[in-house]
Amino acid sequence: MAKKYVYLFSEGDASMRALLGGKGANLAEMTKMGLPVPQGFTISTEACTQYYEDGEKINDEIMAQIMEYIDKMEGITGKKFGDLENPLLVSVRSGARASMPGMMDTILNLGLNEDVVDVMAKKTGNERWAWDCYRRFIQMYSDVVMEVGKAYFEALIDKMKEEKGVTQDIDLTADDLKVLASQFKAEYKDKVGSDFPSDAKEQLMGAVKAVFRSWNNPRAIVYRRMNDIPGSWGTAVNVQMMAFGNWSDTSGTGVAFTRNPSTGEKALFGEYLINAQGEDVVAGVRTPKPIAKLQEDMPEVYDQFVNIAKTLEDHYRDMQDMEYTIEDGKLYMLQTRNGKRTAAAALKIAVDLVAEGMNTKEEALLQVDTKQLDALLHPTFEPTALKAASVLCKGLPASPGAGAGKVYFTADDAVAAAAKGEKVVLVRQETSPEDIEGMNVAQGIMTARGGMTSHAAVVARGMGRCCVAGVDAVKVYESEKYFTCGDKKFVEGDVISLDGSTGNVYEGAIETMDANISGDFETFMSWADEVRTLQVRTNADTPRDAKQAAAFGAEGIGLCRTEHMFFEESRIAAMREMIVSSTVEQREKALAKLLPMQQGDFEELYRALEGHPVVIRFLDPPLHEFVPHEDADIKALADEMGLTFEDLKATIVGLQEFNPMLGHRGCRLAVTYPEIAKMQTTAVIQAALKVNSEGMDVTPEIMIPLVGDVEELKFVKKVVVETADAIIAAAGSDLKYKVGTMIEIPRAALLADEIAQEAEFFSFGTNDLTQMTFGFSRDDAGKFLEDYYAKKIYESDPFAKLDQKGVGKLVKMAAELGRKTRPDICLGICGEHGGDPSTVEFCHNVGLNYVSCSPFRVPIARLAAAQAKIKADKANN
Amino acid sequence: MAKKYVYLFSEGDASMRALLGGKGANLAEMTKMGLPVPQGFTISTEACTQYYEDGEKINDEIMAQIMEYIDKMEGITGKKFGDLENPLLVSVRSGARASMPGMMDTILNLGLNEDVVDVMAKKTGNERWAWDCYRRFIQMYSDVVMEVGKAYFEALIDKMKEEKGVTQDIDLTADDLKVLASQFKAEYKDKVGSDFPSDAKEQLMGAVKAVFRSWNNPRAIVYRRMNDIPGSWGTAVNVQMMAFGNWSDTSGTGVAFTRNPSTGEKALFGEYLINAQGEDVVAGVRTPKPIAKLQEDMPEVYDQFVNIAKTLEDHYRDMQDMEYTIEDGKLYMLQTRNGKRTAAAALKIAVDLVAEGMNTKEEALLQVDTKQLDALLHPTFEPTALKAASVLCKGLPASPGAGAGKVYFTADDAVAAAAKGEKVVLVRQETSPEDIEGMNVAQGIMTARGGMTSHAAVVARGMGRCCVAGVDAVKVYESEKYFTCGDKKFVEGDVISLDGSTGNVYEGAIETMDANISGDFETFMSWADEVRTLQVRTNADTPRDAKQAAAFGAEGIGLCRTEHMFFEESRIAAMREMIVSSTVEQREKALAKLLPMQQGDFEELYRALEGHPVVIRFLDPPLHEFVPHEDADIKALADEMGLTFEDLKATIVGLQEFNPMLGHRGCRLAVTYPEIAKMQTTAVIQAALKVNSEGMDVTPEIMIPLVGDVEELKFVKKVVVETADAIIAAAGSDLKYKVGTMIEIPRAALLADEIAQEAEFFSFGTNDLTQMTFGFSRDDAGKFLEDYYAKKIYESDPFAKLDQKGVGKLVKMAAELGRKTRPDICLGICGEHGGDPSTVEFCHNVGLNYVSCSPFRVPIARLAAAQAKIKADKANN
Repeated sequence: MAKKYVYLFSEGDASMRALLGGKGANLAEMTKMGLPVPQGFTISTEACTQYYEDGEKINDEIMAQIMEYIDKMEGITGKKFGDLENPLLVSVRSGARASMPGMMDTILNLGLNEDVVDVMAKKTGNERWAWDCYRRFIQMYSDVVMEVGKAYFEALIDKMKEEKGVTQDIDLTADDLKVLASQFKAEYKDKVGSDFPSDAKEQLMGAVKAVFRSWNNPRAIVYRRMNDIPGSWGTAVNVQMMAFGNWSDTSGTGVAFTRNPSTGEKALFGEYLINAQGEDVVAGVRTPKPIAKLQEDMPEVYDQFVNIAKTLEDHYRDMQDMEYTIEDGKLYMLQTRNGKRTAAAALKIAVDLVAEGMNTKEEALLQVDTKQLDALLHPTFEPTALKAASVLCKGLPASPGAGAGKVYFTADDAVAAAAKGEKVVLVRQETSPEDIEGMNVAQGIMTARGGMTSHAAVVARGMGRCCVAGVDAVKVYESEKYFTCGDKKFVEGDVISLDGSTGNVYEGAIETMDANISGDFETFMSWADEVRTLQVRTNADTPRDAKQAAAFGAEGIGLCRTEHMFFEESRIAAMREMIVSSTVEQREKALAKLLPMQQGDFEELYRALEGHPVVIRFLDPPLHEFVPHEDADIKALADEMGLTFEDLKATIVGLQEFNPMLGHRGCRLAVTYPEIAKMQTTAVIQAALKVNSEGMDVTPEIMIPLVGDVEELKFVKKVVVETADAIIAAAGSDLKYKVGTMIEIPRAALLADEIAQEAEFFSFGTNDLTQMTFGFSRDDAGKFLEDYYAKKIYESDPFAKLDQKGVGKLVKMAAELGRKTRPDICLGICGEHGGDPSTVEFCHNVGLNYVSCSPFRVPIARLAAAQAKIKADKANN
Repeated sequence: MAKKYVYLFSEGDASMRALLGGKGANLAEMTKMGLPVPQGFTISTEACTQYYEDGEKINDEIMAQIMEYIDKMEGITGKKFGDLENPLLVSVRSGARASMPGMMDTILNLGLNEDVVDVMAKKTGNERWAWDCYRRFIQMYSDVVMEVGKAYFEALIDKMKEEKGVTQDIDLTADDLKVLASQFKAEYKDKVGSDFPSDAKEQLMGAVKAVFRSWNNPRAIVYRRMNDIPGSWGTAVNVQMMAFGNWSDTSGTGVAFTRNPSTGEKALFGEYLINAQGEDVVAGVRTPKPIAKLQEDMPEVYDQFVNIAKTLEDHYRDMQDMEYTIEDGKLYMLQTRNGKRTAAAALKIAVDLVAEGMNTKEEALLQVDTKQLDALLHPTFEPTALKAASVLCKGLPASPGAGAGKVYFTADDAVAAAAKGEKVVLVRQETSPEDIEGMNVAQGIMTARGGMTSHAAVVARGMGRCCVAGVDAVKVYESEKYFTCGDKKFVEGDVISLDGSTGNVYEGAIETMDANISGDFETFMSWADEVRTLQVRTNADTPRDAKQAAAFGAEGIGLCRTEHMFFEESRIAAMREMIVSSTVEQREKALAKLLPMQQGDFEELYRALEGHPVVIRFLDPPLHEFVPHEDADIKALADEMGLTFEDLKATIVGLQEFNPMLGHRGCRLAVTYPEIAKMQTTAVIQAALKVNSEGMDVTPEIMIPLVGDVEELKFVKKVVVETADAIIAAAGSDLKYKVGTMIEIPRAALLADEIAQEAEFFSFGTNDLTQMTFGFSRDDAGKFLEDYYAKKIYESDPFAKLDQKGVGKLVKMAAELGRKTRPDICLGICGEHGGDPSTVEFCHNVGLNYVSCSPFRVPIARLAAAQAKIKADKANN
């Protein structure tokens, strides 16, 4: 039997969303509920998938089924395509499984041609309406199906209005519109090269194909990538009998929400326009009226609508976003769906619906999109001010939030200006560890290069500072202290505003509003904590970050990158002295200077976390990251250190690497220089002894990075254990500590059973693991990944969303191998992925003990962990 | 029951080599054969392993067993340690499973002290002998066990000889030697801080520990790494009753081979020294006599020895290397083993033993070490000239062979000098693709940086050119055109000689001898070809390499790196034009210039391989490798191309990458610039059509590099197939071709089942796969790998010998997944590992179809494949 590709509205229901798309499933559900829905049919998402499999062709089987359903629809409505007595007019709309902005717009009034218009005009006596419908149809069809831009038609309308001396579309007469219709058709023929189709079925097939095509237009692809929607889903097509809101003054069209989508307040919210069709409401031609006014205009219709809205919200147990049309006093429902809402509204609605007894806490937790939480934690632009602003250019939304200030091009300049009380924006080609102070004082950071996981992005997210990265359109001249964007030039002190949530860069200052964490947030997050089993820790290198993360609910530090402590100006000197040492003795002397600083840092971290676990990763980056590379800086350092320029330069050149990512770093440093591991162990252990003597109960966890072989770990662990045990014994203490490793090298994952013999815990470093498993570095991949998205090779950024199929296979393998050797091994993830909801779900399902993410992502991870648990429980029942 | 750690010679046999070491097992075997062997016992390799497990201590159990076996030995010999009537004196010698130079030297005469010497002197009436034995013992024990250098003792001997006015040791009297003995003991006490031990058992335990310790001395570790000997094997210790070659003039000691170890000629070969002990033969104090002379000196002993030699060779069915001592006219065998031999001798002996009906072909194939073959294929230094030469410094033996010539510091200078008929050696900091012509004309290449798999090493091996890489002691000043080594300075035109097989660098010219492939070679290799099932292909980029490889028996090209064709001076211009193109049209124009060149190259390759398969890899390296980076060169290129310096510089800077290894290369280039893949496909297909029209039958195999996802391969394959099919159709041909991929990215191995849906063949690129699986690049790893060897974290270089546990796990996984999807998929390996015997064995066992290696390694791989097959068949029976 042939597959069924087409469904009447009366054949489906809300559960068939995957097959019928959201719009089609809800039209079917409303039909089933007995609500007034103009009838029609839905061409399934499988037809779309088949269309692509057939090389962008609608095959005979699907074509035949569509024709069959046109017949059925004609039977149900008693109207016929192209019939001069009782013509069938339809709307055609796309509808994917998930809401997908960027896809095809609606086509209304399909089925019209000159003959049908004539008949309709005569039969209804509403000649103006008939011709208005027709010209709208030509316009929409040309634009949407044949990609003849709207502008051509709008120019013709404007010309006509000018000729007629009127300003409003509505003042054009039937005759004017008739003339316009033929002008439109001439324009169509001119642009397309053939006559505007007059056959309704031909029109319909054109529209269906346009919907299918729109599934793969560039905007749709970008949207899918940003929202984790697989390209394989496809879109459905809804063909629905027209209801005419432009029929008369007792007609109209509108949209409404069952609750306020901005605030979540429980009150019908929406607007309508009398004697109008479709896009008129949003096009801003006339000002729509608030829905409350409908009570005066058409009290019966209003009451009916209020009832339907309540019925729908009760039925879907969520706030609904509805479209409706009133034709000659009769109400028709054209669509309902769970309404989009602001983050604040989402929380309020979720919490209220539980209070109203409509939903369980678990249902509430699934109702809020994890991504939305972010907006609650960062400053945003004041909406009115934002509307007035003009976008200068666009980069990657690298770290959410909004910020405005004077541009500065070096960290030092930014720090100096901030010290004078200026609001500053740091603009760099790309940032490096030396820029950290500058980033810290800035309202926002903009970089010309680098991706979502570049240094700027990672650090800014950690700080909760807004960042727009990889702004291609901008050329930054750091030493000359200006940047250009197109033909505009911005010098030090010029003001720009950044939206790190959208990637937009604006000229001038836009007013910002602070984040506001309401009571609903706390209630809601406490539910998430009740439900989830996956622990959430944070990546934090400073006591300030650690405190921030603790405030956001972090249950420990999953990753403290000790090297970040060395970049501070007061410390870098000792660090550099250590690096350029040529004997163990010199190196130990320099390390002795760093010891009290590290120990102090660790004490503060322990105190900030109040006894929660703290995982401290030993020195990881290649040493050349800590030394200057410009001759002038080298000269200064040489003078400072009492070395000759030549010697120091030679040392620094000797540190250079072809591929620093694949070079002398991680535990390889500790193998070459065990004295570094010794110093760091001493700092970790002495700090723990200190704070424990103050009454805390810290069990430090020492993490050895970049291990690829158990012998490597064994070697470094021996140094750690000998050092630690000697200090603990000397102190007469019984302090416990753990030694574990990052699993961030493919080989470590492959041989995790061996490595678990030495490691008491694993933390998956999925940044490096992704780089090495894919064989590209995040710094370099930016150059070609855009091509990969454009050519549909990748659907998402593997540095943002864990590649579960490849990298995830290694994670799963390592988790299993590790547990085989050491059943109670603690498993976590500390890569950037730790804050990505889909990755959190993966981690839950693989059975990790915790995820660790930057402080501002902690709430997201908490919610994602709860959602993962709820979904897994559902799937297992 | 306690484990048995000690074995009498009469308790073992040759099969117990793993437990008793080679020396111990053969002493046992000779005992079993009834040959005259001074009796004793062997402390097993397991005792050594246990010694290390116990933290370098000999535990009570082992100690007790040793004491028990001393008793047994005393019973067998009728002598007793420290006995004044009949004292037992022994030799102590190390003996690992494999022959291990660099381990502990022999200790002779153990058991002596002043009292025993006195008694022996009196009892034998040979006072001089007795004191000579004692002073020798003190000297050896001090040196070997307590690391008091020989020089101290030699100084005392020299002083004594001076005082006595004699020149030969042998002219010193018993009294002189007695005085020397007490001087030696005073020296010992001075250096060691305690008295020289007089108790025989104490002496013995000191010697045993010294043997165990020597297993892990640095020389032994280096030797093991170079020869793939696991550190876990440990060494045995042999304790044997002394036979005294220094007893009288009817005594002596010597070594002999059953066949000539240099030529393989079937004739007893060796020498002996009358009235001498142990090391005297090799120490060169007196000139030993050829063994034939023994027939005159002691005809009976000679006949007995000839018989024993024949018996041993027949027994072991291999050429034997024997040590013997004659004590007062009585012959004792001290050791026998399969003798080391030159490559030529190895072949001749292997072939002769088959001809003599002693061995099967399979046994012959196992008798030749694969590594030896190399020596037959390259020039070597003339041995006498080599002896006279002094080593200047040492680097890595990066590509075998010998070469001498004037040093030049740039490829251009080298080419110019060679054109004038000079023999040149190219000296570089490190080489890059632009140096290829210079390397090609050189007798040898020396680099100051880079490892065994650096550019210089890989390319030199491919060319069969000798190369010494990573010579740390040398500082190269390329632009100033000199290098220094210590305080010596070498300028352009100075002469050096390189031995790429040892890594030695010599001052001045050493005469070389050409490679000479004898008839035995061909016979032997034909046996290997009969036996093996694994195909051997070659990595060749030029027709010349391809022809060379075919002559060495390559059965096709497993890897043709097309980019190497672009570096030639005539082509690089078009390549650069392609790279700096800013539109597709410009790029296609430049590619059109490259097309005929590539096509011509491919035609020649096809012809060179005469119908054997040719796998052509599409463009792989990052584009910045092809452009100049110095301002002056950029300026020149800009002028040439009609660009401004600024524009070109900006383009070139834009190509820079943080981690080129993890950057925009491989199939990523073809994704961004499909027109490159189009051009290369056109060249591959048109060339095949051309040569097939000449009567050949080529089926080109196109290999897409660096694939990490099936969609990537699908995308590029589509470009290839569309281009190829159009050309083939237009030509009215039925040419077949294949499209496959490298598996060189961990993710590709993990998802090989998906990738096999598109790939008709896999070729494991184990260079990149090793880099990414380990997370270090071969260019950068040199800095820390030495530490890894020194600290016993790694035992071998993963770039030379495939890491079977980690990288091999991926290879195995990918082979299995690939075959699951496509049972007839062709699997090969084309990394540098393809020529490494242990890797070849792994590939055979995993079931790959072929290995591909550089031309000069083809014979090695053929033999290794045959050996792998024979070993696997044995293991399966």
